[in-house]
Amino acid sequence: MTNLHANPAAPADDGSALLSLLSPRSVAVLGASDNTVKAGGRPIDYMRRHGFAGAIYPVNPNRATIQGLPAYPSLDALPAAPDLVVISVPGAEVEQAIERCLAIGARGAVIYSSGFAELGEAGAAQQRRLVERARAGGLRLFGPNTQGLANFASGAIAHFSTMINEEAGQDGPVAIVSQSGAGSAIVYGGLRRRGIGVRYMVATGNEADVSAAEVVRAVLHDEQVRVVLLYIESLRDPQVLAQAARLAHERDVPILAVKAGRTRAGQLTASSHTGALAGEDALADAFLRRHGIVRVADFRELAEYCHVFVGGQRPRGDGVVAISNSGATCVLAADAAEDEGLRLVEFDAAGTEALRAVLPSYVSARNPIDMTTALLGQPQIFGRTLDAVAERGAADMIHVGFPIGGEGYDFDDFSAQTGRFAAASGVPVVVSANQEWVAQAFRRHGVPVFDSERAAMRALGLLSRYVQARAAVLAAPGAVPASVASAASPASPASPASPASAAPAVSAASPAVPASSSGAATFATTTLDEVQSLSQLAAAGLPAVAHRLCRDREQVRRAVAELGLPVVAKGVSASITHKSEYGLVRLGLDSEERALAAFDELDARLAKLAAERGVEHGGVLIARQHKGAFELAVGAHRDPVYGPVVMIGQGGVLVEALDDVQFLPAPFSPAQAREAIARLHIARAFGAVRGMPAVDVERLAAMLVTLGDWFAGSGAGREAGLEAGHEAGLEADSVDANPVIVPRGDAAPVIVDAVVVRRVADGEVPR
Amino acid sequence: MTNLHANPAAPADDGSALLSLLSPRSVAVLGASDNTVKAGGRPIDYMRRHGFAGAIYPVNPNRATIQGLPAYPSLDALPAAPDLVVISVPGAEVEQAIERCLAIGARGAVIYSSGFAELGEAGAAQQRRLVERARAGGLRLFGPNTQGLANFASGAIAHFSTMINEEAGQDGPVAIVSQSGAGSAIVYGGLRRRGIGVRYMVATGNEADVSAAEVVRAVLHDEQVRVVLLYIESLRDPQVLAQAARLAHERDVPILAVKAGRTRAGQLTASSHTGALAGEDALADAFLRRHGIVRVADFRELAEYCHVFVGGQRPRGDGVVAISNSGATCVLAADAAEDEGLRLVEFDAAGTEALRAVLPSYVSARNPIDMTTALLGQPQIFGRTLDAVAERGAADMIHVGFPIGGEGYDFDDFSAQTGRFAAASGVPVVVSANQEWVAQAFRRHGVPVFDSERAAMRALGLLSRYVQARAAVLAAPGAVPASVASAASPASPASPASPASAAPAVSAASPAVPASSSGAATFATTTLDEVQSLSQLAAAGLPAVAHRLCRDREQVRRAVAELGLPVVAKGVSASITHKSEYGLVRLGLDSEERALAAFDELDARLAKLAAERGVEHGGVLIARQHKGAFELAVGAHRDPVYGPVVMIGQGGVLVEALDDVQFLPAPFSPAQAREAIARLHIARAFGAVRGMPAVDVERLAAMLVTLGDWFAGSGAGREAGLEAGHEAGLEADSVDANPVIVPRGDAAPVIVDAVVVRRVADGEVPR
Repeated sequence: MTNLHANPAAPADDGSALLSLLSPRSVAVLGASDNTVKAGGRPIDYMRRHGFAGAIYPVNPNRATIQGLPAYPSLDALPAAPDLVVISVPGAEVEQAIERCLAIGARGAVIYSSGFAELGEAGAAQQRRLVERARAGGLRLFGPNTQGLANFASGAIAHFSTMINEEAGQDGPVAIVSQSGAGSAIVYGGLRRRGIGVRYMVATGNEADVSAAEVVRAVLHDEQVRVVLLYIESLRDPQVLAQAARLAHERDVPILAVKAGRTRAGQLTASSHTGALAGEDALADAFLRRHGIVRVADFRELAEYCHVFVGGQRPRGDGVVAISNSGATCVLAADAAEDEGLRLVEFDAAGTEALRAVLPSYVSARNPIDMTTALLGQPQIFGRTLDAVAERGAADMIHVGFPIGGEGYDFDDFSAQTGRFAAASGVPVVVSANQEWVAQAFRRHGVPVFDSERAAMRALGLLSRYVQARAAVLAAPGAVPASVASAASPASPASPASPASAAPAVSAASPAVPASSSGAATFATTTLDEVQSLSQLAAAGLPAVAHRLCRDREQVRRAVAELGLPVVAKGVSASITHKSEYGLVRLGLDSEERALAAFDELDARLAKLAAERGVEHGGVLIARQHKGAFELAVGAHRDPVYGPVVMIGQGGVLVEALDDVQFLPAPFSPAQAREAIARLHIARAFGAVRGMPAVDVERLAAMLVTLGDWFAGSGAGREAGLEAGHEAGLEADSVDANPVIVPRGDAAPVIVDAVVVRRVADGEVPR
Repeated sequence: MTNLHANPAAPADDGSALLSLLSPRSVAVLGASDNTVKAGGRPIDYMRRHGFAGAIYPVNPNRATIQGLPAYPSLDALPAAPDLVVISVPGAEVEQAIERCLAIGARGAVIYSSGFAELGEAGAAQQRRLVERARAGGLRLFGPNTQGLANFASGAIAHFSTMINEEAGQDGPVAIVSQSGAGSAIVYGGLRRRGIGVRYMVATGNEADVSAAEVVRAVLHDEQVRVVLLYIESLRDPQVLAQAARLAHERDVPILAVKAGRTRAGQLTASSHTGALAGEDALADAFLRRHGIVRVADFRELAEYCHVFVGGQRPRGDGVVAISNSGATCVLAADAAEDEGLRLVEFDAAGTEALRAVLPSYVSARNPIDMTTALLGQPQIFGRTLDAVAERGAADMIHVGFPIGGEGYDFDDFSAQTGRFAAASGVPVVVSANQEWVAQAFRRHGVPVFDSERAAMRALGLLSRYVQARAAVLAAPGAVPASVASAASPASPASPASPASAAPAVSAASPAVPASSSGAATFATTTLDEVQSLSQLAAAGLPAVAHRLCRDREQVRRAVAELGLPVVAKGVSASITHKSEYGLVRLGLDSEERALAAFDELDARLAKLAAERGVEHGGVLIARQHKGAFELAVGAHRDPVYGPVVMIGQGGVLVEALDDVQFLPAPFSPAQAREAIARLHIARAFGAVRGMPAVDVERLAAMLVTLGDWFAGSGAGREAGLEAGHEAGLEADSVDANPVIVPRGDAAPVIVDAVVVRRVADGEVPR
């Protein structure tokens, strides 16, 4: 878990310094071996076979030469300080090895050795010591417990995976970054088998120092990297990854990521097997979406879907045309397109005409295009069809299905035509095929091939969503300052890797829980009563219900006169969160008399509770009663990993049970808020139905944006005269507005009940 | 579309007669060719190369020999009547060919020729004529527009797919039945590449006569068939498939099915490309689930997941243990297990002890088991671990992940141990591997191998759900008599292949629509008013709200006295479905006075409407007002394809918008009703929450069962004194109970509004 502890700050680095460590000119190997099967022997063998032009320094006190190279008894004996030192010695000797690295002024070390944080607190403490020493001396560490890193452009291969034996290295446009060593090799193998070249393969292991997010940011400084593939089980530097994602979007370099440990079971497994804590997956998902990082399911998908992103073709829209020699494939492709949210293009007159001109009469010019036997012996029809759908048919993307091929089909010709077409038109084309020899034909021409219509259409779906997400990210406000998130991280080891960790933020039952469950209980917090909470939110520009706090009947009369009937009356006490369970709520008061009677009852009841149980008597709240079509819950809390997060869910007391909730890392744009709202199941009912007007989603989105800006300590918060930035951010620890009444038609949502938990100003961050 | 038309009844056949046609002792080929690449040449070539021992009669007037066999000028010239005639002639000559088949007394014909129903109504009419003639003469037809059928046990291959050239036939336990010829070959190829043998490969094409469902029932009479793989775009004989499914479950032979045309886009494509109408997918899904047919997504999944069913191992429960040499795979496997609804076994003391005895100290005895490097050079630990988790660890299923292998891993040994273990223990074991050579090792020992943890775990999920579904089907009442469904089918061509076709049944807006949208508008129907509808449902034993129809104030006084306050008042008129829009509803009448006042208003308003618009004045309904935690919608309609179907959904006027609906082909068991209810999103809120008691789901399920029994014309219907069986089934055309108020705690649901549409008794079925 130590990898989540705050280390002495890493040297300020936009990533370019780290990138140079991935391109070392000289590599020393501590524990170098003559045996090319051993971890201390492989990198030397790999570097020599991949033509590494730099210096290789085997270090081994017991031998004069290693694999034919002169060996050195110790680091001190090297002719020059190496850029990178590979440490392949028993864990107990690592600390000493680091001292030597520092002594000779090495800039980076890759620690293969295990026996650190992954074994528990003792190892974690040892790991912390390593990092403190290294950082003090300006030495960056990869690992420990890592398979290392490889650069296939220079042949600097400090990675010991056997996969490099199985699939020879080949430089290319892809960077692989993985917390799992096996994972880095699995993805590498998958890419190489598909004929895709790899520039970097980096396994970050325990991430004592260098994190996966840092490496992603670093490789994005290499102009030739076109796609980044990331495997993480826990995200240590989300803000660094957010910065990397923005850089990636500016360069149009997609980041495909697997965030494992999605489920409770997976999270428990993850937290046991790496020195890492898996965050709450709904937040991880929201974070990745927020930053336009394409989330896929596993290693296989990383390697499989990389291909469609590498080519550089990008769809202009969401319209897909499917072409096949099998009717069944046409049906399955149509199903898959709808599943992926893609639009099956309907040809207009021009498109239909263009197709009629190239298709035989027995092939109907409709999408999907069922070629039946038209391509048998007539391959030229294929290319003409591609041109027709692209030029006149308004295809943004094309799916070609050849589920079965045999005599009469010239796949060398089809694949060559496809490759030429994609390169010339910039229109993404994917192929699905079941026969390996058919797939090979297309791969030879760089066409992405998949083994089912669904997989091919999913590739287009991922590509299309990436293009949309990229535009949204470039249009959205920047991520929250890293300081906000990092300020929270000391607490994270206390955060349980459990889906529950976010739920409390949506629960009226436990307004203070986000603080504790997020580990932030280490901050002193105080729970505001309903009146204070509503005022706080109103001050932030949020639509809190109009209300008056009444201490006597005269104030009640004035409140009723000012608010208008009907009203509700609630007994106020910060120490009581479930008012109704204490009989402290009166609804539907439709006359002044009823309002006064309710006041008398609640006032007396509170007095009694104060006398008997010593609960605070906060007066009686009189508020306008609102009726709406929907009850939602809105909240905000500070996640130890992801920082400030806003939540919206199908509401009332059933919010957790219904589990219809969306999260938004704050701040965010109105567009991003609208998308989150649209993902709610209940949102399907927000449209105009049976003569009832639609819900004004714009207003709902605006409310979320205001909350996000204020909670993240900027924008509306500043306008509302609150301190801006980090301090204001620290102000509120959590917000729980539930219910929020959402009407149909031209009316605003109203927060009718709320609990705000504040962090006490002088709260301090313990180590 | 003709394939949905009622043909002259097929000869009564439990499937065994059709099975004999799949094992012909003699095959004639009309349009036989010397060219083994032509459709008329391939089957002859295939039969000879696959050692068909029966007689092959090439028929070709222009040649003395075909592929070295004596050729015959015409069918009449054959030495004996062939069991099966392959018709490979132009469409125009097919009718004459059928006449010849009849003349010589052939029992079956496979029509390759196209140009029939798939081209529209003219072709459809021609196709109908073929069937009428054939059936009259006792000749069964496969196709037209089919690639044919193959029997790899006898070598009787009347299928012309080139895939048989690419992957040689090998007899085995699998039967492939597909409406798509390409589909049958794609699945065949996928199985053969995985080393799985195939007994039957049957493509049914246009299904003018023999349907896919009939073929499935037929092959289930072959004791050596262990798995049936089915591809359909439209289901012609659902009741035959239901019977086949029951037979399959009695023999524990899983049926895996792809029902394509799931989406609106897919359905439109399907209805264009085969001569078939795709049914509403939610109904198809409910039907397949109801009969324990395992639904998968596409051809790839059919071939991929077949393997885990073929072995015959069946899990005793839902507990899975995952074992891997990679921590990342352990995490991904845990995620996948939870995604699949499988339980990650937690080892008890005995299991932990057993594992500690076989595992090295640095491997922790927890699930998933991360072997790290324990298996390097110590393959025996693997087998001992399998035994330990099976014997003491209570594993129902085992996932083994070898995402990466290299020096030191003996996969020949691992795979042999795995094969032996699975055979001996009966515990299903699946492997995930990324390297083909690793996968090959396991396939050689018959172990199902998948290329990702998710795919492997999905295989176990499908297997586990199959075992549960099988038990449910064997425990459930039999399917509705085919007569009920077939009675509706004459109307089906009118049924649009659109998701809307079922929706109206859930809509209070259009109670009569199911009749028209299901094409059953060809039955005369009449819409009952609210009072008649509630009485009808009450008579069927359903919980209709207590109510009185009042014509005068005295009746209102009596109603209030008998029902108790508060009550609601509604103006009754069969011609008005949206009462509220006509101001014909008064809620919350909490005194006799208010009830009387409401009666006067509604009575006057109805009189006015009657005078001005001639709507029927049905009196004023006084009913007890019910408050409940949830509003659901319950309905029933007669689907032209699937017969009587009960629907339950998250209700009120938003039922279509929320699209939280489940369907149940009637009749069904309480267990099946509970499962359907549990699949509703809103059901997540049915449990006890915040001190509120849970919803009594048993009562809700019982209500659905009663509705299903009555609507399907049996059970409760009979008890309620209604005519039983088909006639009673015809009685109600649709039921729309919306809303149904569902309370929490120990209280029954109440139908507070309903519309029943009846079929008029003397309604006649037009052709």
